[in-house]
Amino acid sequence: MLKDTVRTLSYRNAIFSNSEAFKDKVVLDVGAGTGILSMFAAKAGARKVYAIDMSQIADQAKVITEANGFGGTIEVIKDKLENVELPEKVDIIISEWMGYFLLYESMLDTVLDARDKFLKPGGLILPDKVTLYMAAIEDADYKDEKIGFWEDVYGFDYSCIKDIALREPLVDCVDLKSVVTNPTPIKEIDINTVQKNDLQFEASWKLESTRDDYIHAFLGWFDCSFPTPNGKPVRFSTGPHAKYTHWKQTVFYTKNTISVYEGQQLEGTISVKPNDRNPRDLDIVIHYETQEENKQVETVEFKMS
Amino acid sequence: MLKDTVRTLSYRNAIFSNSEAFKDKVVLDVGAGTGILSMFAAKAGARKVYAIDMSQIADQAKVITEANGFGGTIEVIKDKLENVELPEKVDIIISEWMGYFLLYESMLDTVLDARDKFLKPGGLILPDKVTLYMAAIEDADYKDEKIGFWEDVYGFDYSCIKDIALREPLVDCVDLKSVVTNPTPIKEIDINTVQKNDLQFEASWKLESTRDDYIHAFLGWFDCSFPTPNGKPVRFSTGPHAKYTHWKQTVFYTKNTISVYEGQQLEGTISVKPNDRNPRDLDIVIHYETQEENKQVETVEFKMS
Repeated sequence: MLKDTVRTLSYRNAIFSNSEAFKDKVVLDVGAGTGILSMFAAKAGARKVYAIDMSQIADQAKVITEANGFGGTIEVIKDKLENVELPEKVDIIISEWMGYFLLYESMLDTVLDARDKFLKPGGLILPDKVTLYMAAIEDADYKDEKIGFWEDVYGFDYSCIKDIALREPLVDCVDLKSVVTNPTPIKEIDINTVQKNDLQFEASWKLESTRDDYIHAFLGWFDCSFPTPNGKPVRFSTGPHAKYTHWKQTVFYTKNTISVYEGQQLEGTISVKPNDRNPRDLDIVIHYETQEENKQVETVEFKMS
Repeated sequence: MLKDTVRTLSYRNAIFSNSEAFKDKVVLDVGAGTGILSMFAAKAGARKVYAIDMSQIADQAKVITEANGFGGTIEVIKDKLENVELPEKVDIIISEWMGYFLLYESMLDTVLDARDKFLKPGGLILPDKVTLYMAAIEDADYKDEKIGFWEDVYGFDYSCIKDIALREPLVDCVDLKSVVTNPTPIKEIDINTVQKNDLQFEASWKLESTRDDYIHAFLGWFDCSFPTPNGKPVRFSTGPHAKYTHWKQTVFYTKNTISVYEGQQLEGTISVKPNDRNPRDLDIVIHYETQEENKQVETVEFKMS
């Protein structure tokens, strides 16, 4: 993850751009990992950084932050956030909590708990705004390789696996040339104010085809934004138009191929919520209808697990 | 794994080459997965195939084998082998049990249990012979990217992670041009006769450099062999000279760079055994000495986990 330079340099840029705000302040790093964001915060002038991580990596974070001379500033706490008591409220929360398709195995719930428990009123959260987007893509070759493969496996019929494969969104890098429609935002999240309940949602969307083509899948990604004092946020995108990140994009194959012409409207809904039985899994349902004659309608259910 | 055609086609070839032996016989498939090997066995003429797998995939194997008309021949058993009782002894055991570096997370122990519990005397095991090999490689660029990276991470010292990274063998495809020495077998296993105790071993080895170069790592891989009635085994290799398989090769970085000239001897030992605390992990220790003047000596400890 450290090798994802888009991610790490965006955080560094955002933290250093806010060095006035960090100077002599108290910072909480939620899911600190190796402590890289905590060290950026310490370098930006923080008086104290609490770096919380429940996993074994916290042992390394302690060694690393001390080896780099931050032993007096950064306090690594190896525990679940819900068990942690801090001796003071914090001025700033930093966290790299985003999962695939933003919400899959994300730590946003924990960040919201940290906000409600530890952040001073008016405190800063980095990042503070994220937006989920979708578009539709042409993907005949890859869909055939990923899904069509199961129709004839060394001469055998594996179509039950094909059905399972269709329900699994695919995290992969998609070529911008595959995108057949304009993109559209489906969910904007302001981390300063969002509540946990808002994270399961149903949204309506409209897409317009930019050319005559076939559509084999919908595509999802997110953008991420950090506030700065000059009002011009630090941003990065995980979309197909942007530089590679380890989040790549998320591909949702439809069962049917959709035929579209330039300017044609496609509309529908998308619902996203944790699975009832296993809340770590994400249930995603996409419904679409093509407008005009030869109307195509389909509802496709997915599960990220 | 099904998409690994070297693997799957070798099994198919080996089973079909033994169709005389399979005809009207009873077969046990250990760790059957989706049931592909069981279906090859049924097509080769087996009277009965017991397909054992303890994981959820067994549910799919049942659907798949029935969908392909083998419901009467293949009996899928979703359980641990140790809990399984069969109504008869079997003539043939087939299994794809091999892990990375052959022995990491391998199912060979289970195959040996199956052999001792269910195989008729003189019964057939596919595959029946595997050999572990090693060589030494030049790998300056990639070692720098994988290991050197930790020396300066966005300006911070991560050398404690470098030490951890060095201890983790890397599963990756290595270009044949990187290989600096002849290869040498370090362990031959005959599955007809091997005992579990033989699977932890220490071996001596000798390598000879084929050119003047630097060595940054040792490389491990295995070959696999299936008996056939004509005496000419079906084989495949996972070495750097062979076609891609999902096993790739395994890279063991040394701490020091070794300088060698053409014809120079390098000798040492390698020990491989399950970790005492977590037997799923594999402890590997490589000791080497260069012969001649400017002798270089090092012992490097690895853990696959």
